[in-house]
Amino acid sequence: MKLPRLVSHIVDDAVARALREDLGDAGDITSDATIPASATSSAIIAARKQGVIAGANAVLAAFRQVDPAIKVAVNAGDGERVKKGDVLFSLDGPSRGILSAERVALNFLGHLSGVATATAALVDAVTGTNAKIVCTRKTTPGLRALEKHAVLCGGGRNHRFGLYDAVMIKDNHIAAAGGIMPAFAAAKTSLGHMVKVEIEIDRLDQLEEAIASGADIILLDNMSTDDMKQAVDINQARTILEASGNVTVKTVRAIAETGVDIISSGWITHSAPSLDVGLDFK
Amino acid sequence: MKLPRLVSHIVDDAVARALREDLGDAGDITSDATIPASATSSAIIAARKQGVIAGANAVLAAFRQVDPAIKVAVNAGDGERVKKGDVLFSLDGPSRGILSAERVALNFLGHLSGVATATAALVDAVTGTNAKIVCTRKTTPGLRALEKHAVLCGGGRNHRFGLYDAVMIKDNHIAAAGGIMPAFAAAKTSLGHMVKVEIEIDRLDQLEEAIASGADIILLDNMSTDDMKQAVDINQARTILEASGNVTVKTVRAIAETGVDIISSGWITHSAPSLDVGLDFK
Amino acid sequence: MKLPRLVSHIVDDAVARALREDLGDAGDITSDATIPASATSSAIIAARKQGVIAGANAVLAAFRQVDPAIKVAVNAGDGERVKKGDVLFSLDGPSRGILSAERVALNFLGHLSGVATATAALVDAVTGTNAKIVCTRKTTPGLRALEKHAVLCGGGRNHRFGLYDAVMIKDNHIAAAGGIMPAFAAAKTSLGHMVKVEIEIDRLDQLEEAIASGADIILLDNMSTDDMKQAVDINQARTILEASGNVTVKTVRAIAETGVDIISSGWITHSAPSLDVGLDFK
Amino acid sequence: MKLPRLVSHIVDDAVARALREDLGDAGDITSDATIPASATSSAIIAARKQGVIAGANAVLAAFRQVDPAIKVAVNAGDGERVKKGDVLFSLDGPSRGILSAERVALNFLGHLSGVATATAALVDAVTGTNAKIVCTRKTTPGLRALEKHAVLCGGGRNHRFGLYDAVMIKDNHIAAAGGIMPAFAAAKTSLGHMVKVEIEIDRLDQLEEAIASGADIILLDNMSTDDMKQAVDINQARTILEASGNVTVKTVRAIAETGVDIISSGWITHSAPSLDVGLDFK
Amino acid sequence: MKLPRLVSHIVDDAVARALREDLGDAGDITSDATIPASATSSAIIAARKQGVIAGANAVLAAFRQVDPAIKVAVNAGDGERVKKGDVLFSLDGPSRGILSAERVALNFLGHLSGVATATAALVDAVTGTNAKIVCTRKTTPGLRALEKHAVLCGGGRNHRFGLYDAVMIKDNHIAAAGGIMPAFAAAKTSLGHMVKVEIEIDRLDQLEEAIASGADIILLDNMSTDDMKQAVDINQARTILEASGNVTVKTVRAIAETGVDIISSGWITHSAPSLDVGLDFK
Amino acid sequence: MKLPRLVSHIVDDAVARALREDLGDAGDITSDATIPASATSSAIIAARKQGVIAGANAVLAAFRQVDPAIKVAVNAGDGERVKKGDVLFSLDGPSRGILSAERVALNFLGHLSGVATATAALVDAVTGTNAKIVCTRKTTPGLRALEKHAVLCGGGRNHRFGLYDAVMIKDNHIAAAGGIMPAFAAAKTSLGHMVKVEIEIDRLDQLEEAIASGADIILLDNMSTDDMKQAVDINQARTILEASGNVTVKTVRAIAETGVDIISSGWITHSAPSLDVGLDFK
Repeated sequence: MKLPRLVSHIVDDAVARALREDLGDAGDITSDATIPASATSSAIIAARKQGVIAGANAVLAAFRQVDPAIKVAVNAGDGERVKKGDVLFSLDGPSRGILSAERVALNFLGHLSGVATATAALVDAVTGTNAKIVCTRKTTPGLRALEKHAVLCGGGRNHRFGLYDAVMIKDNHIAAAGGIMPAFAAAKTSLGHMVKVEIEIDRLDQLEEAIASGADIILLDNMSTDDMKQAVDINQARTILEASGNVTVKTVRAIAETGVDIISSGWITHSAPSLDVGLDFK
Repeated sequence: MKLPRLVSHIVDDAVARALREDLGDAGDITSDATIPASATSSAIIAARKQGVIAGANAVLAAFRQVDPAIKVAVNAGDGERVKKGDVLFSLDGPSRGILSAERVALNFLGHLSGVATATAALVDAVTGTNAKIVCTRKTTPGLRALEKHAVLCGGGRNHRFGLYDAVMIKDNHIAAAGGIMPAFAAAKTSLGHMVKVEIEIDRLDQLEEAIASGADIILLDNMSTDDMKQAVDINQARTILEASGNVTVKTVRAIAETGVDIISSGWITHSAPSLDVGLDFK
Repeated sequence: MKLPRLVSHIVDDAVARALREDLGDAGDITSDATIPASATSSAIIAARKQGVIAGANAVLAAFRQVDPAIKVAVNAGDGERVKKGDVLFSLDGPSRGILSAERVALNFLGHLSGVATATAALVDAVTGTNAKIVCTRKTTPGLRALEKHAVLCGGGRNHRFGLYDAVMIKDNHIAAAGGIMPAFAAAKTSLGHMVKVEIEIDRLDQLEEAIASGADIILLDNMSTDDMKQAVDINQARTILEASGNVTVKTVRAIAETGVDIISSGWITHSAPSLDVGLDFK
Repeated sequence: MKLPRLVSHIVDDAVARALREDLGDAGDITSDATIPASATSSAIIAARKQGVIAGANAVLAAFRQVDPAIKVAVNAGDGERVKKGDVLFSLDGPSRGILSAERVALNFLGHLSGVATATAALVDAVTGTNAKIVCTRKTTPGLRALEKHAVLCGGGRNHRFGLYDAVMIKDNHIAAAGGIMPAFAAAKTSLGHMVKVEIEIDRLDQLEEAIASGADIILLDNMSTDDMKQAVDINQARTILEASGNVTVKTVRAIAETGVDIISSGWITHSAPSLDVGLDFK
Repeated sequence: MKLPRLVSHIVDDAVARALREDLGDAGDITSDATIPASATSSAIIAARKQGVIAGANAVLAAFRQVDPAIKVAVNAGDGERVKKGDVLFSLDGPSRGILSAERVALNFLGHLSGVATATAALVDAVTGTNAKIVCTRKTTPGLRALEKHAVLCGGGRNHRFGLYDAVMIKDNHIAAAGGIMPAFAAAKTSLGHMVKVEIEIDRLDQLEEAIASGADIILLDNMSTDDMKQAVDINQARTILEASGNVTVKTVRAIAETGVDIISSGWITHSAPSLDVGLDFK
Repeated sequence: MKLPRLVSHIVDDAVARALREDLGDAGDITSDATIPASATSSAIIAARKQGVIAGANAVLAAFRQVDPAIKVAVNAGDGERVKKGDVLFSLDGPSRGILSAERVALNFLGHLSGVATATAALVDAVTGTNAKIVCTRKTTPGLRALEKHAVLCGGGRNHRFGLYDAVMIKDNHIAAAGGIMPAFAAAKTSLGHMVKVEIEIDRLDQLEEAIASGADIILLDNMSTDDMKQAVDINQARTILEASGNVTVKTVRAIAETGVDIISSGWITHSAPSLDVGLDFK
C-alpha cells in the first residue's frame, strides 16, 4: 500500500500532548516505585481483533519521547490488514519507559486503527463498484490530520481537510446568495483558480441548476437510492456526484450501486470503535 | 445534576486547536464568498437521537472564539437527558460566524455526548446494585479531561486521571518487585500519604495476599462472574473490589450483581459512538 | 471592496509575537520613564505615500494588546486606495500605550500595505485584459496568511496557500513519475476529488500532453511572450493557462496581452517595498 | 567575517512556523503522490544574482526539520559575497524531503540575503568615511532577530533590539517630560546604570541642550546634510551623532561625509528586495 | 538514594524558558565578541557551601540546549550530600557555550539544591522519630514539579501536587458544606474511589468528628505541641495525623516528638535560601 | 512610588502556567465537591509580617483567569510598605473561584514581596550614601522579569536583564581575548553604539587598565572594603564603580561607605524569604 507521509510535527505534537495528559507533573509513580531504573524488558504489541492498522508513527513517537533508549520494530504498519494475535510491534528497552508510554501508544493505535478498520469495512462493501469511500470534517477534535491518514490506511480517500481548502456550498449559503447560480458565481469570483467547488443539494429538482452552474462536484444529501439513481441518469457524467447521509456497512453497497462516484461517511471518523490492541511483556 | 467545573483553559485550548484544524490559514472560504458580512441569523442545535448531553462549554467556546457577537443560550446542558428533537442550544448572531464555528461545536458536542450517553447506558443497567461505573485511562488522545467530565455527565465516576495521581500495581510491577507484598511496600515507602494504591490481580488465589498487603482497592481483571462472587465473599468488605474486562451493556448487570463495588469500562471513552446532533437555521 | 475575514487568531498571534520582540522583558523603558501613567493623547496614522491599505486588523490588535483602553477608529481600511497625507486611523487613549504599540502597528501596516500596493500596480497594469494577478508561495516566513490577504486587498487573487491544498507538478515530479501523464495519473489516484492539479511546463512541446492529461491548470514557466501566445492558441480554452517568471510592472501588460488567464508573481510578496506610514500626536 | 551566534531556538522556531504554513495538515501532497519514498537526489542551491548571503542557519534548519536524513553542505555561508551562479549549498538525500523543504529554505535565504545585500550596498557606499550603517526597529514582524543578524552579515551594525534595551527619547517624550533636560533626567533616575540614552532632535537649536543633558547619543532626525555638518562642528566629538531619514544608496555617501558617526536605515530591513536564489536537482 | 524519574519535558521546558530569559534575541553578546568560536575549555561546577544536591537534570539540559557539543559528567547528582569544595559536575566543550549556559544552569542548581538542603535540615532534625517531612503547595510559580522533586532529594516526601489530585477540606469548605461530616460526605459522593481525603482542623474538639467522618488524614493546623500530643493520644492510630504551622529547624523536633505522623512545611519550598554553587574554568 | 509598567503578557503567561500546575486536569476537586456553584464570599488578603509589596498584577491576573466574576480591589499595591495586619486586597465574588485561585495568587505575592522586602532592607541600610542597590542575573528561573520589577518595588534598580542587553567582561573573556584592553576593543568593534560595557576585575592592579580601556562601568568583585576605598580614590569619578560579593544586610553599609556607586546583590532575588501573606474570608 502506498501512503503519503504524515507531517511529523503533527504526530509529535499530538503524542506530546497525550503524554502530558498521562504523566502529569509526578510521572509514572507506580513504575518508579516498583521497578528498578536499570531493568530492561522485551515486549510485543499485538492485535486482539482483526482489523486494519493505522497509527504506527504515533506508537514510535510515544516510546521515543518517553525514552529514546527503547527500540521499536514495526512488524505490521499503517495500512496492513491483520488478524487476531498478529504481532504489530516488537519492543526492547528500559522496562519503566515501556510501561510509562504503553497506554498513550495503545490509545493512538487503537483509535486510529479503529478508523482504518471501519473505513475498510465500507471499502470492502463497495468492491466492484466505481464508488470511492471518503471521510468528512466530522472528526475527533485535535486529531483530524491523523484520522484523515487513517482513512487512507483503510483504503478510503480524503474529502477537503477543512473550511479552508475547498468550497462546499450548502443550503444556507444558497439562501444567502439568492440561489445556486449566484452562490456559485460568488465563489468563483472571490476565490482563486486552484479551489474546487462542491454544491450540496437535497432535492432532485436542484440538480440541473447545480450542473449548469459549473460545480466541480455535487453532493446529494440524504437522498433515497432511487433519487440517487435518477441523479446519475440525469447527470450523464457531466460532473462528479457524491452521496452522503445514513451511510453504514449495511446501506453502503446499495448506495454504491446507484452509480454515484463518491460516498462520504462521518461514521468512520466520529463513531468507529477502537481496535483492540494490547502490549505484553515477553 | 451536580457537576464539578471544567478547567476553563482546557476547554479553551482544545477548542482553539480544533478551530485551527478547521479554519486553516484561509478560513471559511465558502461563507466569506457567499454570505454578506452583515447578515445575521437565528439557529438551534438539536438532538437527532436520544442521549445524555456533555460538551456545552466547548460549544460556547467555539462560537465565542469565532465571533463573540454570537449569542448562545443553553437549553439543555451537561448531564441532561434529552430525546430526539430536543433543542439543546439557541443561537443568534452573524451568519458567517455561526456557520464557521458549527462543525467544531458539533464535533465536540457529538463526541462528548456520545461518551455521556454510553456511560449512562451502563449506569442505567446497574440500577439497584451497589456498583459504580467508572472510566479508565483508555481515552482519546488530547481529550482526557473533557471525556472524564463527560463520564460524570453520564452518571459515572472517574478512576485515576493518569499515571501520576494514584498507584496501580499490575503484573509487571509485581514481577519486578518480587511479589504483591514487596510491590505494595515499595509504593508505600516511596510515595506520599496522599496517594491511593490499587493492586490488579487476575487469579483468585492472589486475593488474600492483596488484601493483606493493605491495598486501598483490588482490581479483579478479566475474571468470570463466578470468581468475582467468590472474591466478594472472601473479601468480606475489607477492601474495595473493582471489576474490569469485557464490560458491555449486556454483561454489566451480571457483573454488578456479583457484589463488586466498582466496574471500570474503557468502552465508554474509546468506542462510544458520537451522539447525532445538528444545527439548523430558523 | 469585498474581502474575506482574516482568521482572527492568526492576526492575534502574529501581533503578539511582534510585540514580544519589541517589548522584551523590560518593556518600553523610555515611555515609562518620561511619560506619566495618567497622560492621554490623540494621534493619527497617516499615509506618507500613495498606496493601497492592508493590515488594519493588525493595527487594531497591536493597540488592543498593549492597552485595551486605546480607542482606534479606522478611517481607511483594508483595500482602500489612499494618497499621501490621508488619515488612516485615529487614536485616542493612554499616551504610553500608544507609543509602546506604535512601531509594531506601523511595521505591519507598512509591510502589508506594501504588498497590497505592489499587487495593485500589477492589477492596474493589466486592466482591460482577462488576466488575473495571483501571488505564490514566495512569502515572508511567518506572514503567509496576512500577505495572501494583502494580495486580495490589492485586487489580486490567491494561488494555493501551501503544499497541502493543491497539486503543482513540476519538472522533478514529472521526472520521478516517468512523464507528465503518469505524474498526473498518480496525483489523481492518490488524492481526493476536491484537489485541483496544475502542471508546470517550460517548453511548448509539452503543452498538448499536459492538456491531454486532464490538468486543471497549466503553468507556462519562464516562457517568452511569443511562446505564451502560441500556447494560448494551441489551448483553445481547453484548460486554464498561467504564466510565471520575470513578472514586473513593466513586463506584465505584454504577458497579459498574450491571452493567458493567470499571471503569478513572487515579487508582490517577497520584494514589495514597505508603504511609508507614520503616527503623529495631535 | 566574524559573526556572533544566532540564538538557535529563534531560528528553529521561525523555521518550524514557516514549515507549518507550507505543509499544513496534509503535507506535500504533490511529492507524496508522484515521487517514491525511497528516491534520493542531489541538489544545489545557487545565487541567481550577486549579493551577500544571510540565513544559512535557517536553510539548515528547514531541511533538518523536514527530514534529518538530508545532508546539507554550506559552500557560501552568512556574510559571504557571492556572484550570480555561485553554489551556496549542496544537498543530498531523500527527494521528497528536499522538495518539501525547498520553498521554506529559499524564502528565508532570499529574504535575509536581501537584507544583507541592501546593507552591504550602504556600507560600500560609505567606504572611507567614519560612518557606521545601522538598522532600526522597522523590521518585518516576527523576524527581527534574524534580520538584525542579516544586517551584521552585510557589514552593518545593530541599533537597539527593541523598546527594552536602550532609551530613545523622541519628541513626544520630550513634550511629556517638559523638555530635553527633564526627559533625560527622568530616564537616568528610573533606569539602571547599564542603559544607554539617545535623544532625538530635529532642529539644530536643540543640539546644545541635548549634549549638555549628558545623552550618550544624539539622533539628528531628517536634517539636511548642511545641518548635519553644522551639528558635527558644534558637537566637537563630545557625544555620538546619528543621522536618520531619507537614507538611500544615493544619499548615504553625502550623509556620511558630513562627519556623523552613525547612519540608521529602515529601508535595509523593511524594503530590501529578496535576493534571487534557486534550488536545482543535479 | 532511590529517586523517581523527573518527567523530561517538564525539565526541558523550564530550562528552555530560562534560557530565553537570559539569551533574549541578541544572545550572549559578550562571549561572542571576545571569545573565538573555536575555543574550547574544561570547567567544573563545585559547591561553595555544604548541602544536598538537586537539579542535575536541569544542569544537563541547560548545557545541552545551548550547545550539544558540551560534555557534562555528573560527579555528585540529585540527593547527594556534599561539602564545601566538592566537585558536582565536570564540563568540557566550546567555551562560548559553557559561558552562555552557565548562569541558567547555576540558577536551577542553586535554587533546587537550596530546597533539598532545607528539606534535609528538617529531616535530620526529626531523626529517630516517626515523623515524615512533607512539602506543600506553597511552591515557586512555574517550578512546582522540580521543587517537589528537590524535596525528595532532601529526604522528604510529597504532599498532594495540586488542587486536583487529593481532597483537602479546610474551614471554608466545612462552613459551606455545613460541618465536617457533610463536607466529607460530599467529597466521597462526588469523587472517585482513587482520591484521598484530608480534613484540616484547628481545634482539638473537632478531632473526634473528623476521625468519625472517615478522613484518610487529619491536618492539625497551627496547634500547640501540647494539643498535638493530645490529638495523638485521642487518635489511637485510627487515622494519619499531620501537623503544620510554624515549622522551623528549631521547632520541628518538638513537633515530631508529639507523635504526629506527618509534618508539612511551606518554608522548604518558598523560602529556602539558594545553595551557593559556582563554575570555574580549569 | 513611580514604577514602570510590567509587560502584561509576561504576567499573564506566568500566572497561567502556575494555575495549570495547581489545577491540573481535574481542577479544584475539594471546592467543587463541597461548595455550591452559586455561593459568593468576601475575603481579604493581608500581610502577616511587615514588608514591601510586589506582585499585585499577578494577584489580579490569578483571580481574573480563574473567574472574571471575582472583583479585586487593591488596597496596598506594588511598592507600598506595609505592616503586619495591613489589608492588601479585598475580594468579592464566587466562593469557589476565590478558593481555587488563592494559592497561586499568594505564591506570587509572597515570593515577589519577599524580593521587594529584601531589596528594601539593603536600600534602607545604605540610606544617606550615594550607593544604589541593584539586582543581578541570579534570579529564579522563569520569573526574571517579575523579580526585576519586585526589585524596583523595593527601591532598588536593575542591572542588565540578560546576556543580551549589555556587555559584562569577566575573567574568562579577558583571558580569551588576551587582556582587558583587547577584550574591550573586541566588544566595541562588534557591538553597536547602544550597548554599555562593564569590566569585572578582582584585583586593584587591574583598575587603571580597566579605566583606560574606556569601560562604562567597572565591577569590583569580592574585594575587601579597604580595596574598594582605594579603588574609589584611584578612580576619581572617571567611571562608575560597582561592588559585588558577600553583600548582606550586615555588610552593605560598610560597602556603601567606601564610596562605590553601585552595589549588586544576588541574595535579594535568589534567597529572599517569602513574605507571609494570607487570605481570609470575611
